[in-house]
Amino acid sequence: MVLMKIISLDNVPTTSPQMEGAEGVCKQVPLGVADGTPTMSLRVFTLDPGGFTPYHSHPWEHLNYILEGKGVMVDRDGKEHPIKAGDYAMVLPDEMHQFRNPRGAGAGRPLKFICMVPRERE
Amino acid sequence: MVLMKIISLDNVPTTSPQMEGAEGVCKQVPLGVADGTPTMSLRVFTLDPGGFTPYHSHPWEHLNYILEGKGVMVDRDGKEHPIKAGDYAMVLPDEMHQFRNPRGAGAGRPLKFICMVPRERE
Repeated sequence: MVLMKIISLDNVPTTSPQMEGAEGVCKQVPLGVADGTPTMSLRVFTLDPGGFTPYHSHPWEHLNYILEGKGVMVDRDGKEHPIKAGDYAMVLPDEMHQFRNPRGAGAGRPLKFICMVPRERE
Repeated sequence: MVLMKIISLDNVPTTSPQMEGAEGVCKQVPLGVADGTPTMSLRVFTLDPGGFTPYHSHPWEHLNYILEGKGVMVDRDGKEHPIKAGDYAMVLPDEMHQFRNPRGAGAGRPLKFICMVPRERE
């Protein structure tokens, strides 16, 4: 375990998590449980054009920063809200939500975003 | 309180926190306690050229993403480690650390970074 870590995303392994209701999603964990973080975990998700995360809710919040691309967040009422590189986003516990990279909105580019969660939800 | 928040940093108020041992530091909190986050807070710090945060330690971790510019992180031994836009960084609890934007390294540009902490440390 290191005490201070500095890393570029290029050096972080990529996985393709199998999540029901998701498509075209890759995951990286630049800073998290394996580093000994006591409270938080910082994951990065990349959604291919046409990709989406599950439309679901869970009893913890997430805090997001959009790194690259454009897309939408779907809220509890099914309404789509545009997001783009440079935006910050938050979902509170138990709120239905989904990230989507629609081919129109994203213009064929990946949508990449930070998703912070409590460490036990990494 | 909103349940889903999407915000650009341009729309987040900036404060100049008075911290002993710091100089040229501005702070923004795009996502945090005021939004009702139960676990985490996402702050953004901007260091002017020549600016620095305190060289200190505290009993909680922070997780960072470098948004803009270049600078250095000083470790427990006083050693400087270069950081640049796109890097992820972590400091574990009780580790001495400091962020600096030295005029040479940063080439006169601000150093801007996300600093995540447990909500009660916002």
